[in-house]
Amino acid sequence: MSLSEFEIIDQYFTPLGHWQGPHTVLGPGDDCAVLSPPAGHQLCVSSDTFIEGVHFPVGANGALVARRTLAGAVSDLAAMGSEPLAVTGALTLVTAVPDWLASFSGALSALIQDWQLPLVGGNISRGSELSVTWTVIGSVPAGSYVTRDGASAGEDIYVSGWPGRAGLALSKLQAGQQPSERLAKHYLAPTPRLLLGQSLRGLASAMIDVSDGVLADLNHLLQASALGARLNAQSMAVDELLLATADSPAAALTLFLTAGDDYELCFIAPSSARAEIDRLALKLPLPLNRIGETKAELGLMIENLPDSVTESMLIKTSGYRHFS
Amino acid sequence: MSLSEFEIIDQYFTPLGHWQGPHTVLGPGDDCAVLSPPAGHQLCVSSDTFIEGVHFPVGANGALVARRTLAGAVSDLAAMGSEPLAVTGALTLVTAVPDWLASFSGALSALIQDWQLPLVGGNISRGSELSVTWTVIGSVPAGSYVTRDGASAGEDIYVSGWPGRAGLALSKLQAGQQPSERLAKHYLAPTPRLLLGQSLRGLASAMIDVSDGVLADLNHLLQASALGARLNAQSMAVDELLLATADSPAAALTLFLTAGDDYELCFIAPSSARAEIDRLALKLPLPLNRIGETKAELGLMIENLPDSVTESMLIKTSGYRHFS
Repeated sequence: MSLSEFEIIDQYFTPLGHWQGPHTVLGPGDDCAVLSPPAGHQLCVSSDTFIEGVHFPVGANGALVARRTLAGAVSDLAAMGSEPLAVTGALTLVTAVPDWLASFSGALSALIQDWQLPLVGGNISRGSELSVTWTVIGSVPAGSYVTRDGASAGEDIYVSGWPGRAGLALSKLQAGQQPSERLAKHYLAPTPRLLLGQSLRGLASAMIDVSDGVLADLNHLLQASALGARLNAQSMAVDELLLATADSPAAALTLFLTAGDDYELCFIAPSSARAEIDRLALKLPLPLNRIGETKAELGLMIENLPDSVTESMLIKTSGYRHFS
Repeated sequence: MSLSEFEIIDQYFTPLGHWQGPHTVLGPGDDCAVLSPPAGHQLCVSSDTFIEGVHFPVGANGALVARRTLAGAVSDLAAMGSEPLAVTGALTLVTAVPDWLASFSGALSALIQDWQLPLVGGNISRGSELSVTWTVIGSVPAGSYVTRDGASAGEDIYVSGWPGRAGLALSKLQAGQQPSERLAKHYLAPTPRLLLGQSLRGLASAMIDVSDGVLADLNHLLQASALGARLNAQSMAVDELLLATADSPAAALTLFLTAGDDYELCFIAPSSARAEIDRLALKLPLPLNRIGETKAELGLMIENLPDSVTESMLIKTSGYRHFS
């Protein structure tokens, strides 16, 4: 590493510390950062590690790594209904490549302001593989956070946005094809659903972010809430871009259910909240697809699956399983 | 890795989540943990990464890794005068060795309770080298945190405890010798000075934890506060165990000034606080050595250095330098 850790911090990360949010009392540079959360709020905290070749492609440019990994971390705040407060980053580098660092730092600089998440601390290490660990801290009005385990039987199941697009973009990139910009952005620069998550406080009974695929993460919600579900495949294939770009309607549906790179939110809400959730979808604006409902009996059924999509295919690609 | 990440978490880390402190509303298992800091408090946050072969010896047992790395992270809370609130951990494993994991987890279980720092989240990854990133979160009554930059000229400089002992223990271990238990514990199980740090709120004008050696970290305090200092070597060689075990009085003094493995606190306070600091030393009980005083003119001088300890030796081993 030609640049020392000190020089890397000084050139690429210290400038990012100059923007601090309204709740940062002391930014980076001392033994700790000091934050002053809004009065009456509780804190939400999550740590995520992303490793080259495991969580992002080997050789990915700095901007891609910054955008995908920070989105993945921030998505956990969205899934609690949390407002962002601050982030710390621990970056382990194999070598210090100025172009890569400039790309990473440049993207990060935009993201922390877009998502109102000041970088309050962290460190740079030298190691044998590239990785980054983000710890995101957010806040919610006391008692208003949304967990995974609050759902009841007979409630509606929703998923936000356009699940499957990021996975399709990735598969095209991996095959050496160039996806359209409209498709590619879902993989290259995913948007954590912070505002949606916050807007669902008091409406959603349970929520999770989709990092492993809609079916896999819905299963986590159902297990936490000790429920089953009946989904309707006809409510899912509503994304015209996905339908137009995937190899077949069945492939589009499989991507919708099993691709996990979009960081959308999957949530459950009582039917009394339908009108308000429909209004929210128009206001954001963001599709909020009602894909099924919860059941007291365990197990997950999907109605109206095309013949070409079998349950065993879903199980294979998503960890989808009947758990009754 | 014969055990899956899920099995590792289930066997070795989920049990640690069962103990949660008084301020944890929701422990591990959801998208985020939820914390409720004491009313009127601000938060202190710090992230540290520790890599095998860089920050701890290759092949170190799990308990040693847990004890030294978590102490290093928690020491940053101590240096702000913070009370502990919670910690998240990101562990990257090369292979899952049950004995190592049991040793790591067992030590961690004791530490989080000793230091009142519930483990509220984290993750396990597979990678090509062993590392752990801790993010510690603490709280302080609003405005009472102690920074590095608050010192004035003519104030007293202190260092707590027994700096040098851990470094001496390490050098003996590396040489294949067995240090006495009394010496070894400073390296094998360092104690972050949480209570001291908290007790110095309102007394200390500037504070840092000693991770790079007394001289190197004092230099950080002096730079942040734009001051110089005059130290007195005769105030330093007061540790009988260090004097009895090191090769010579000069070696003991060099260890005191340059070894950085103890996680003691170095702090500055006005002379009006002397009586109270002396009472604090008796109460804790913990040596609080007054080793010199700050000066308006930049540069660091050490009076009464033995002939056998030269400034160039200190510069070589500690990054010690005149910066006037």
